[in-house]
Amino acid sequence: MSGQSDGEDTGGAYRGYRDTAQVDMPMAPPRPTGPLTMRGARIVTPNPAHAAAAGEPPVPGPRTVAEPAIPLPAAGSMPVSQIWTVERHLDEILAAVPEPHPIELAVLDAQGLLCAEEVASQRALPAFDQAALDGYAVRAEDVVGASPHVPVELAVVGESVAGAGAPSSIGPGLALKVAAGSMLPAGADAVVPTVWTDQGAARVAVQAGPPAGSYVRRTGDDVAPGDAAVQVGTPIGPAQISLLAAVGRERVLVRPRPRIAVLCAGPELVDVGTVPAPGQVVDVNSYALAAAARDAGAEAYRSGILPSDQRRLTEVLESQLLRSDLVLIAGTFASEGFDMVQEALAELGDMRFRQVTMYPGPAQGFGRLGRDEVPVICIPGEPVAALVAFEVFVRPAIRLMLGKRQLFRRTVQAIAAQQLLSPLGYRQYLHGTVMRHPDGGYVVEPVGDGTEALLARMARANCLIVIDEDVTEVAAGGLVTVMPLLLGG
Amino acid sequence: MSGQSDGEDTGGAYRGYRDTAQVDMPMAPPRPTGPLTMRGARIVTPNPAHAAAAGEPPVPGPRTVAEPAIPLPAAGSMPVSQIWTVERHLDEILAAVPEPHPIELAVLDAQGLLCAEEVASQRALPAFDQAALDGYAVRAEDVVGASPHVPVELAVVGESVAGAGAPSSIGPGLALKVAAGSMLPAGADAVVPTVWTDQGAARVAVQAGPPAGSYVRRTGDDVAPGDAAVQVGTPIGPAQISLLAAVGRERVLVRPRPRIAVLCAGPELVDVGTVPAPGQVVDVNSYALAAAARDAGAEAYRSGILPSDQRRLTEVLESQLLRSDLVLIAGTFASEGFDMVQEALAELGDMRFRQVTMYPGPAQGFGRLGRDEVPVICIPGEPVAALVAFEVFVRPAIRLMLGKRQLFRRTVQAIAAQQLLSPLGYRQYLHGTVMRHPDGGYVVEPVGDGTEALLARMARANCLIVIDEDVTEVAAGGLVTVMPLLLGG
Repeated sequence: MSGQSDGEDTGGAYRGYRDTAQVDMPMAPPRPTGPLTMRGARIVTPNPAHAAAAGEPPVPGPRTVAEPAIPLPAAGSMPVSQIWTVERHLDEILAAVPEPHPIELAVLDAQGLLCAEEVASQRALPAFDQAALDGYAVRAEDVVGASPHVPVELAVVGESVAGAGAPSSIGPGLALKVAAGSMLPAGADAVVPTVWTDQGAARVAVQAGPPAGSYVRRTGDDVAPGDAAVQVGTPIGPAQISLLAAVGRERVLVRPRPRIAVLCAGPELVDVGTVPAPGQVVDVNSYALAAAARDAGAEAYRSGILPSDQRRLTEVLESQLLRSDLVLIAGTFASEGFDMVQEALAELGDMRFRQVTMYPGPAQGFGRLGRDEVPVICIPGEPVAALVAFEVFVRPAIRLMLGKRQLFRRTVQAIAAQQLLSPLGYRQYLHGTVMRHPDGGYVVEPVGDGTEALLARMARANCLIVIDEDVTEVAAGGLVTVMPLLLGG
Repeated sequence: MSGQSDGEDTGGAYRGYRDTAQVDMPMAPPRPTGPLTMRGARIVTPNPAHAAAAGEPPVPGPRTVAEPAIPLPAAGSMPVSQIWTVERHLDEILAAVPEPHPIELAVLDAQGLLCAEEVASQRALPAFDQAALDGYAVRAEDVVGASPHVPVELAVVGESVAGAGAPSSIGPGLALKVAAGSMLPAGADAVVPTVWTDQGAARVAVQAGPPAGSYVRRTGDDVAPGDAAVQVGTPIGPAQISLLAAVGRERVLVRPRPRIAVLCAGPELVDVGTVPAPGQVVDVNSYALAAAARDAGAEAYRSGILPSDQRRLTEVLESQLLRSDLVLIAGTFASEGFDMVQEALAELGDMRFRQVTMYPGPAQGFGRLGRDEVPVICIPGEPVAALVAFEVFVRPAIRLMLGKRQLFRRTVQAIAAQQLLSPLGYRQYLHGTVMRHPDGGYVVEPVGDGTEALLARMARANCLIVIDEDVTEVAAGGLVTVMPLLLGG
């Protein structure tokens, strides 16, 4: 795959939420740079220039801004070597995901996928000279100078029937009635559109004389034999399917949907069909993440809760590695200590868990396991953090495997309807509701305060609010980056 | 269905390409009104105000502007009763499409569909008091006044294990190590986050005293028993699936995908597996339209080419009416005369063919046929016109059956890179390529001249350019409405 970093690049070869060149993405205004605090934190105010010019102290002070809301180790005080940013973790994942081998599918099943072959046409399109419009096939020289006042009369020798094999022919002074797409008779070199005639049946009065070639589709005008009809990397939609069928293709080679196994881990988990006992929690992640993976374009298998028996756990992991292009596991993993799942993973390859400077869900893991070094992404088990991690790390990986050029959701800048606090050194993702402002632009408000795992609130959100690592506070009225989470289809 | 017109409304109860309130839709600037010509045609110039003020005659004159490119009956000269606009035809279709009965699906299969029931939770979420963060469960009164300089020491009585059923308890001076989501011990009323402690195992030094209730998720905070978890009309995405699983739902009642039979008609058609003889054409429409219908959210069945035997033709039509919510037929139909397919349709109910003031493909048909009055939409057989008609009439109908609030694709205003001509009185749809302009906004250019059915060119397009009925010319640099055609997924 081209354009990929070596996985060590903290500069963000793939930026997690940057603008893309998608055609439907509104152009985002430059984000204002707020005043810097003593610890390097940036505060986004409605009028940062004013606040800076006046020399006002940032309020509230950076020491207490965000910690009361979200207590996290102060990333700003960590040694640089220990800081593992969102971009660094994402770069590592994107550099490691494989490019699945192209497969041949029936054209209808190829929809939404990228063509993986150069489809050269064996045929000419159109396959024969034909009328481009309903009208009368004529010899252009016969109707030169025709006008509504001085029409030219021609004898109509018949009508070209669609699908008829043997072409008819016309001579001087003759016309053949033709429908759009029907074969042009030999001798004719133009079609006079019906509306420029008296629509006669035996004889027709032509009121305008189009030049030779008018309203005629010539053999091969659209596609000549040997022309590339659909090229490598073209997304296959209805128009491409139309063209593939026209050149006689029933099947086409495409970049396949990556097969993703979705698992979850945790002794507290029970399946959705079970009424949870005290302390137990229903497995929601394998459902939500399988849905999110399908929405991103993957073929997702919900494999459910990992067994607690050590031998069966390893068996399940191994069988998932064999049948998947990527394995996704949601669970509560220790960044240093080891639990049973982490031990089983470590036996299968180099699996690394780390604290990524993001909130929610800093505990993230990645490795390439098994004989085939299948990428395995571990994300937090808390359901809100799991879906955030999916958006940030897994969705771009799926889109890269699909061959999509745009890995990331588009973003917009929105006005914060209320003050937003964020821990210094962490990129915070808050679920929110973004609306269009009557005066233009967007307004966003969070659906929670970022400290609670509230599924009902998350279900009301339509976006993620993204607050940069160096921002500790966005004042009400300040601009903030928003990633709308719209469903495909 | 609410909000529908009675089908006789030419005012456009559903506007074919108007702005919608979708969150990701860029706000479109008001379209400039060009100078009116003698026949009421509007010409969109780069600087219409200037041209009007200077009293310049519109160039080129309206008489010859568009007719050479697209000869059509002059709609402006028709009696008003005979003018059948895009909006009028669309209104008739939208007023007639049924609302399919809700069906119950497994939650994962419900993705992208609208919930058709009020899902009340039988459970509280969370189901028990729990820690919101990793830390130490404490009695808030024990740690009042704690600070980094004056920490409070507590004895750690153990660790709360996720999934453990029997809650432990703590008394004065004691703390329990807890992980996010683990059960809060009896007696505790706050959690001290790990980063505010020395992370001790037997004894812990607490450096901040959060008030009672801090970092604790109480039973029912998210959803109380009896609360509506997911409401009627909510689109089901990963977050809703998460919530449905959490309240114990494996299945959910949804608005189903409408079942659409896709057929094509024409004696010239052969299936894609056949090498066409002279005069024959491969059926591309049943493939392309089935793909487009799936992309719009329907469950589309490609039923292929209608038989030419009269009895079998009627049998096929009847069986498709029985199994479909909507039948879509692409073919070349006469607006007045009758062919075999039109006769067969007429026997099944009131099927109306008419010339809609649009280009390409003015010949459109609609009726409700069979015992169940299933809507049948007939669209042109020419593949480019067929996909245009799908966008204009069929996609909104599918979205209405799905229950979607936004029936129409969003539009943007783009600068025309070249002059565009359009017949007076007709709404013209041109396939084009829209790009972002480096200075902001969009630039669009057509992929053809609008007179030719070129599949290869259509396959390069990423938008439809929409030129209003009263516009005959958009000058290079003028603004024009563009409908980006992006694939879902």
